[in-house]
Amino acid sequence: MTDANLESDLVRDFHSVWHPCTPRRDQETNPPLLIERGEGVFLFDRAGNRYMDVISSWWVNLFGHNHPRLNAALQQQLAKVAHVMFAGVTHRPAIDLAGKLLSLAPPNLSRVYFSDNGSTSVEVALKMSLQYWLQVGRPEKKCFVHLSGGYHGETLGALSVCGLGLFRAPFEDVLMENVAVQGPDCYSCPFGLVPGSCQAECFGPMERALEEGAGRIAGVIVEPLVQGAAGMKMYPAVYLKKLQEAAARADVHTLYDEVAVGFGRTGSLFVAGTEGLRPTFLCLSKGITSGYLPLGATLTEETIFAAFDGDFASRRFFIHSHSYAANPLASAVACETLALLTEDDFLAGLRPKIAAIGAHRPRFEELPWCGEFRQTGMIAAVELVRDQKTREPFDPARRAGYAVYLEGLKRGLIMRPLGDVVYFLPPLVISLEEIEMMMNTARTCMIEALGK
Amino acid sequence: MTDANLESDLVRDFHSVWHPCTPRRDQETNPPLLIERGEGVFLFDRAGNRYMDVISSWWVNLFGHNHPRLNAALQQQLAKVAHVMFAGVTHRPAIDLAGKLLSLAPPNLSRVYFSDNGSTSVEVALKMSLQYWLQVGRPEKKCFVHLSGGYHGETLGALSVCGLGLFRAPFEDVLMENVAVQGPDCYSCPFGLVPGSCQAECFGPMERALEEGAGRIAGVIVEPLVQGAAGMKMYPAVYLKKLQEAAARADVHTLYDEVAVGFGRTGSLFVAGTEGLRPTFLCLSKGITSGYLPLGATLTEETIFAAFDGDFASRRFFIHSHSYAANPLASAVACETLALLTEDDFLAGLRPKIAAIGAHRPRFEELPWCGEFRQTGMIAAVELVRDQKTREPFDPARRAGYAVYLEGLKRGLIMRPLGDVVYFLPPLVISLEEIEMMMNTARTCMIEALGK
Repeated sequence: MTDANLESDLVRDFHSVWHPCTPRRDQETNPPLLIERGEGVFLFDRAGNRYMDVISSWWVNLFGHNHPRLNAALQQQLAKVAHVMFAGVTHRPAIDLAGKLLSLAPPNLSRVYFSDNGSTSVEVALKMSLQYWLQVGRPEKKCFVHLSGGYHGETLGALSVCGLGLFRAPFEDVLMENVAVQGPDCYSCPFGLVPGSCQAECFGPMERALEEGAGRIAGVIVEPLVQGAAGMKMYPAVYLKKLQEAAARADVHTLYDEVAVGFGRTGSLFVAGTEGLRPTFLCLSKGITSGYLPLGATLTEETIFAAFDGDFASRRFFIHSHSYAANPLASAVACETLALLTEDDFLAGLRPKIAAIGAHRPRFEELPWCGEFRQTGMIAAVELVRDQKTREPFDPARRAGYAVYLEGLKRGLIMRPLGDVVYFLPPLVISLEEIEMMMNTARTCMIEALGK
Repeated sequence: MTDANLESDLVRDFHSVWHPCTPRRDQETNPPLLIERGEGVFLFDRAGNRYMDVISSWWVNLFGHNHPRLNAALQQQLAKVAHVMFAGVTHRPAIDLAGKLLSLAPPNLSRVYFSDNGSTSVEVALKMSLQYWLQVGRPEKKCFVHLSGGYHGETLGALSVCGLGLFRAPFEDVLMENVAVQGPDCYSCPFGLVPGSCQAECFGPMERALEEGAGRIAGVIVEPLVQGAAGMKMYPAVYLKKLQEAAARADVHTLYDEVAVGFGRTGSLFVAGTEGLRPTFLCLSKGITSGYLPLGATLTEETIFAAFDGDFASRRFFIHSHSYAANPLASAVACETLALLTEDDFLAGLRPKIAAIGAHRPRFEELPWCGEFRQTGMIAAVELVRDQKTREPFDPARRAGYAVYLEGLKRGLIMRPLGDVVYFLPPLVISLEEIEMMMNTARTCMIEALGK
């Protein structure tokens, strides 16, 4: 492929494609990478340049690109049937996937509802919760509590439980009215405590919201342990334990959005199930196909499912339908993904990798722009600040994170920070050597971008 | 595979999977088909029984199951990379697909935004329209007009422009406030006119809604020519022409949801572009991958895109993001789908098929339960009624459509009527012989199910 062809493709892209989350003027100055192939944790552009996929292509990839077993699983299903509708019809990949998911999820969950992506997995949970309360005779329970900093997708229902102005602001007037609660903020703990030894002293606002609103609240939705889009904000499980107790007292559903943190990212397969955590709904997507194909799944309890029992005339059944629900190709890849995750003690094998990432903490903390180095399992983040002592942030116009990103591209890393939070969320198969390369190069990028 | 295994898989399905649109008690009496493979217009269950996919697996399949060229396109992309994020990165399948879509869409459309399914293609259009008006200084334009009988997906934003109580009712209280307008009803035309010769005399309510609400209406959304979920209700293009003029007068966007009718179903590639129709937004999904993989696309005009121009600080860019946006595997299959649709005068080749379907009109009209036989291109529908003369409907408890569906399963057809509307929406590659089999068998099913 000649440079002229590359040029021509990028020109075509510039004039026809509208990319998500991309200011036009950034695209003018820094055209997108034209990625042609992938192998393991690396992506290759047309010129053959290699880039490490540090954020797993928006947090989806677990086993690297072009994985022989995932490719084979997809091809085997393709030889049978790519897709068939999921009403009046079922198929082995979906049945197997539902069974595997339930065997790995906490024991209170017994039903799997398939959809197409993370947003729809959340929309399904919100709608099931609303229809449940309606059908058990409590129609006044029709709002949701969500956390400041929460992100659960961007279809308008999912966006209505988002706690981030960046995503909500242009649509504020049309969003369903829900209840935003100040959530944990371990980076600037108002109690001066440290995660790991605290008792979620910050739980007060949530406790009050649930007590006062119990009669009208359907459920509370959280990203357990790590609030991704907020900038990989992390908080301890004790908050979730308190939430579980308070939600039970208030007779309110708990919705765990593990779209980003599920499938091993935190070191556990799911957060749900650890430490006795038992959400009413568990929303999954992203890693479910190891970053191959869109697929969503919403797991829930038998009590929820039972409230939808009835004959046709009762209209009590759940109608929400996507044409490609339980797509057999995606389901087949998901089954193989779960096989890979559960074979040969795979999750235990993450421990040295988690330790290797964590070993870089002091080397980042010694940088004058490191406000915090934080880590939960295979996810780590560096909060870049102008002044390490006062934690005064950079002027947003400085675009410190973006400057580090551009340095990364020069050095073979695709990082894509969230504002001024540079984070590491690599495919789980990243090797120890690749972890060294990733962390060392990222550190160099910070020095190059910010030290001048 | 033994019967015991089949039994065991269906038991696992029954106890773990929550199927969409499926009353539990129906599933008890009529377990789902366990589909194992597909070939052309046929699906095969584990016992080897053959079923014609009369409704293209929820209106998605165009070129039949297991199509060698579509399989090959998928495999070729799989050998390169299954997926990569679509911000800061681009790839050839998406660039090619955007180019092909724009070359086939009306000339006013110049930009393609990718998402994952039909609902999200609509959510994207709604959100772009809202943010557009906000950014051009008219934030008061923030509601949408939709038609009675309209269906545009079931995420809560898409559901807020749905005109069907079946889908909306349990969620009515949390939906964004929009404006429902009585749309065309050619089955029971209040003016006693006939589509084809009328002048959309029923346009009055829409005209008034747009005139009176112009200041607060962002856009009007329609399924052009065929309202699918309403029961394949059909109306003539003259309604859309009047809508185009009235929307222009009211300075209101037009949103065409061609998720179901696009890609050749009506005999044209899109309704947009025929008869001078130029929507502001064109929402596509379903057939875009010929029923292989979930993929959504929202096409729009340069004036819309231009209103999102700005630097990072302006926050004027469109943030809405799905991890799997522009999935390369789905995009590659979509490119091949468009190649198949545009080669060898494929659409012209539909004309004899459309005629063959239409030739069965008198044979259905002679049945005493045929309230109407209607057809638009490759879509035909029979409205079943208790009394043909008075068009008195069946008692819903009779479940006439469902009875015909069950007869179909015995005779190798998967029909899945919409209430008492039995419809035909087969893969476009259906042969003339297969059309005869489909129409004759369906007619027999009606007689068997209703004639006793």
